Amino acid sequence: MRLEKPLSPGSTIGILGGGQLGRMLALAAGQLGLKCHIFAPEGDNPAFQVAAANTVARYDDEAALAGFAKSVGVVTYEFENVPAATAAFLDRWVPLAPNARALEISQDRLTEKTFISKIARVAPFAEVGSRTDLATAIAKTGSPGVLKTRRLGYDGKGQTRFAAGDDAEKAFAAIGRAPAILEGFVAFEREISVIAARGWSGEIAVYDVPENQHENHILRHSIVPARIGRATAEAARDIAAKVVAALDYVGVIGVEMFVTKGEELLVNEIAPRVHNSGHWTIDACAVSQFEQHIRAVAGWPLGDPSRHSDVVMTNLLGAEADRWREIAAEPRACLHLYGKGESRPGRKMGHVNRLGARQG
Amino acid sequence: MRLEKPLSPGSTIGILGGGQLGRMLALAAGQLGLKCHIFAPEGDNPAFQVAAANTVARYDDEAALAGFAKSVGVVTYEFENVPAATAAFLDRWVPLAPNARALEISQDRLTEKTFISKIARVAPFAEVGSRTDLATAIAKTGSPGVLKTRRLGYDGKGQTRFAAGDDAEKAFAAIGRAPAILEGFVAFEREISVIAARGWSGEIAVYDVPENQHENHILRHSIVPARIGRATAEAARDIAAKVVAALDYVGVIGVEMFVTKGEELLVNEIAPRVHNSGHWTIDACAVSQFEQHIRAVAGWPLGDPSRHSDVVMTNLLGAEADRWREIAAEPRACLHLYGKGESRPGRKMGHVNRLGARQG
Repeated sequence: MRLEKPLSPGSTIGILGGGQLGRMLALAAGQLGLKCHIFAPEGDNPAFQVAAANTVARYDDEAALAGFAKSVGVVTYEFENVPAATAAFLDRWVPLAPNARALEISQDRLTEKTFISKIARVAPFAEVGSRTDLATAIAKTGSPGVLKTRRLGYDGKGQTRFAAGDDAEKAFAAIGRAPAILEGFVAFEREISVIAARGWSGEIAVYDVPENQHENHILRHSIVPARIGRATAEAARDIAAKVVAALDYVGVIGVEMFVTKGEELLVNEIAPRVHNSGHWTIDACAVSQFEQHIRAVAGWPLGDPSRHSDVVMTNLLGAEADRWREIAAEPRACLHLYGKGESRPGRKMGHVNRLGARQG
Repeated sequence: MRLEKPLSPGSTIGILGGGQLGRMLALAAGQLGLKCHIFAPEGDNPAFQVAAANTVARYDDEAALAGFAKSVGVVTYEFENVPAATAAFLDRWVPLAPNARALEISQDRLTEKTFISKIARVAPFAEVGSRTDLATAIAKTGSPGVLKTRRLGYDGKGQTRFAAGDDAEKAFAAIGRAPAILEGFVAFEREISVIAARGWSGEIAVYDVPENQHENHILRHSIVPARIGRATAEAARDIAAKVVAALDYVGVIGVEMFVTKGEELLVNEIAPRVHNSGHWTIDACAVSQFEQHIRAVAGWPLGDPSRHSDVVMTNLLGAEADRWREIAAEPRACLHLYGKGESRPGRKMGHVNRLGARQG
């Protein structure tokens, strides 16, 4: 369903998922005088602490979904693995943004690469349905490649390196023998991403480009602005704008890209939601990615994405968040903690935005 | 009670009062991974929409207060008219910040002026216990003066102008014949305020000085920085620092001052809470007054109060908030709405921070 008219202040936005992204969306909605209703399958969620209402139920509980849909003016989500049936069910009752097509594309790496390759360059890729496909695939992508499951990969899970001559059976077993894609290895200089937004009316806003540093497949730092040329940054922003337009997308999207030595751009993947590499916008822009997403899905005008300060965002993983007192005492450091009870190694517990030079 | 040790992330802060200030405190606490429990006598409060827990009970309901106190690590408040008995009761169970003395002083204009006059200049004032005191009082303060009830004045209520020769009975009747204070009229050029914070350890942080423009006794704009000399701004900040030290204060305070043509400062009043003239800090500083207050009462290090942008804050009163779409579309405008259902003329429904030049 499309949104008929903008949600008035005081309206309620439904959010599927209750993690830190849902929490930061709810905080941003609160600033705009909008309420949030969180739907999540577990009981103890970071987002529940700051939302007006919550429902604890499974994503296939249609009675719970129907009640949720009736209580809100629009439904959005904080994670891309929303089941297709859940999205289709909700979309019959209430506007859903981003739309089901964005979920469908981003949930399957093969569909995603195929879609993106019509808009921008991607690494060479090939479908892998069985171990016997691997030999032909590696010839197509170049060796070495990365074998990834088509669905449900996250933070480096469900993938393994594969080179010509490697044991195909072993590689295919390592990813659980699931339908897969082989991606050619890209010799990149840096990773960047673009956080873009599109409203129901087709209006588009794109933030400045962060440079992302990963450790163990988990984002560690986003440095803004990215250390790339102006034309490269413009080209990256332009790709993101084309992606949201092609998807008839509503909301904020994260588009991850590689930058080669020659400043060529290759799109890696898209995330149809607010994105970890956009957390710096909370403190360095007039309107954050979270507020922007709320504005977009609620049919409000998009906000000004311009940036007033340089900034470095650093994720606080596991026990790193125990240093909160020290970080809170740093000048020009903006600390964000997610209200998660249990700290596990590598778990995203918070982040810090360290503001640097001001932009003129 | 004093706070024994800093509250850890995940702890709960108790807030008396559920209006927009409580709401913005809860949003700031949420950013730091802290929960809020709101205590308010009415059922439908803006702060309830963004807080983890709430209690609806009267401020003299000791059973409800005791339950509330047990559920939180510290209690603070969003308004200065917390009954003394409520504050005294809570302080036996849980740390209360700001302390009962700050409430006692700010609830009584005579006590307040007497306290402030030991630190800074104030307008001439005199106690008025009956209409017959008025003749001697006006001689002391100079004519004309403003007759104000000692207690419970707010946004221009409970006050009337009085000049030598006016009908004393009529003036005294106009303020309900309550114990009062006569304040000499001050020929000021501008009104400013200072938003300062002090932690349990005595650490103090003071924001840049806003210039405040009122209409019908209600704040309309705060312009930052105030159009006053650097030395005057420093002197104003110094007064606020002395006030919080003298009160052994913990939390954020608003100190309102007049600036005369010769740039002399006269303190008007103090508000022992986050202050409307500090709302610009949300978007123009790394750490807002709301986060600063939460940090202070929770025993966290105070945050950096430095300002990255010039800014003008404008309150959205009554139907002005209906222009939210237009305001949301302005470049570099940060819109804040309070989630209030009913819009009445003059009611504070939200505010907008318009960011201007960046500070180097």
